[in-house]
Amino acid sequence: MNRPTGSLYLVPNALDLGTEGAAAPLDAVLPLGVLRTAARLEHWIAENAKSTRAFLKRVDAVVPLGKALQAISIVELPRPRKGGGRPSTSNGAALLEPAVSGADIGLLSEAGLPAVADPGSAIVQAAHDLGVPVVALPGASSVLLALAASGLNGQSFSFVGYLPVDAAARSARIRELEALSRRASQTQLMIETPYRNAALLAALLESLQSGTRLSVSCGLTVPGGFTRSDAVAAWRQRPSALPHDIPAVFSLLAG
Amino acid sequence: MNRPTGSLYLVPNALDLGTEGAAAPLDAVLPLGVLRTAARLEHWIAENAKSTRAFLKRVDAVVPLGKALQAISIVELPRPRKGGGRPSTSNGAALLEPAVSGADIGLLSEAGLPAVADPGSAIVQAAHDLGVPVVALPGASSVLLALAASGLNGQSFSFVGYLPVDAAARSARIRELEALSRRASQTQLMIETPYRNAALLAALLESLQSGTRLSVSCGLTVPGGFTRSDAVAAWRQRPSALPHDIPAVFSLLAG
Repeated sequence: MNRPTGSLYLVPNALDLGTEGAAAPLDAVLPLGVLRTAARLEHWIAENAKSTRAFLKRVDAVVPLGKALQAISIVELPRPRKGGGRPSTSNGAALLEPAVSGADIGLLSEAGLPAVADPGSAIVQAAHDLGVPVVALPGASSVLLALAASGLNGQSFSFVGYLPVDAAARSARIRELEALSRRASQTQLMIETPYRNAALLAALLESLQSGTRLSVSCGLTVPGGFTRSDAVAAWRQRPSALPHDIPAVFSLLAG
Repeated sequence: MNRPTGSLYLVPNALDLGTEGAAAPLDAVLPLGVLRTAARLEHWIAENAKSTRAFLKRVDAVVPLGKALQAISIVELPRPRKGGGRPSTSNGAALLEPAVSGADIGLLSEAGLPAVADPGSAIVQAAHDLGVPVVALPGASSVLLALAASGLNGQSFSFVGYLPVDAAARSARIRELEALSRRASQTQLMIETPYRNAALLAALLESLQSGTRLSVSCGLTVPGGFTRSDAVAAWRQRPSALPHDIPAVFSLLAG
């Protein structure tokens, strides 16, 4: 490396996307150190430019931005491919050009940590390949907060993303995850599009064995959020209604 | 439930355990909202009482504690069983008695999120069983920051904790994890006791295939911390020395 490059900062976002709490001060949920770094970055790569501007306005309310919002560059990540594949890294070099030229860049997702349960990992890999230092700033991931709050095994766990939408394929996948969980005493975590929360819960309660523990976290870090962790038998006896407009994280551990 | 109970707050800690950065102001790495909650809690359950007092002194430097440190109750978690099993929940009810009586309790680990890659999940499960609400406060986990910084697949990942110490068993486990990673395109994450960082890296470079990507994060959120993510072939050509006194997170994704 002959000249210093800028760094790629992975900037955590709040977890309140789509909730009424989304106007709460950011320093309640993000470290001041993160807000200070975010306030000085002039180049951003993000899933969505509009929500990035909303994030920067929330930053500005705590730590004034170093430059006017209009003068800050925001480039959107390529859309993920259908089927969950990762977008190609081919245009990573173009997106990372400011870093190669010496400027720091922020990578932001819609909620939580960039590149986790989320697009963005291809651009991080491209940064490594270009010799651009990658710095992950401290922040929460809803997946890990849900795991902590579940009381299930936190020494061995697996996040598998979304389950199939087709009912038969989903049941088969649930039984496969339960078997994996039993074999290695490993917590299995998954997410669902909010409007399908209730359908996923029903499918889990239908397919899992009664002694398996199931935990559901909704609205983490948001007022009114909750985690219920219980045996499947107890869920069946006393069902919970899940909101259809707030993301939930589901965790299971075979008994 | 006839009377309101207190809540069990899962309080994130900084990630700078054992580093020279451990004197840095906590608001650089933890949200003010978390520090405000921590400052008012008068009951704590923790891995280690001494380091909990050190944490509370760091909190006090940002948000004054509601009560003198000497008057705050700190109870240590039972030691984990040999072999990685989880401690029993049998004394959970005793530890959680203050919450049943209406007082909030904080659960703290030595670094990062409680109950993740860490003792503490048994007490969280006991809280659910007693009807004590569990609230996970937003904070970073080194495992997830390492995953984000790796650029490896963040849509499907598995954390498996420690590998066997015995060389033959460790090699076999590494090949097993690589096969799992290939089958489901799933990132596999693991940790090691710092003085064995170099030994684990050597074992990984010996056992993995050259096209597999390997990422190592050391000293996350601490000055001098770094993440290197590269193909195994490139690691072999240009090895990195790892510190023997700072925790590292290792991630692999079969090519």
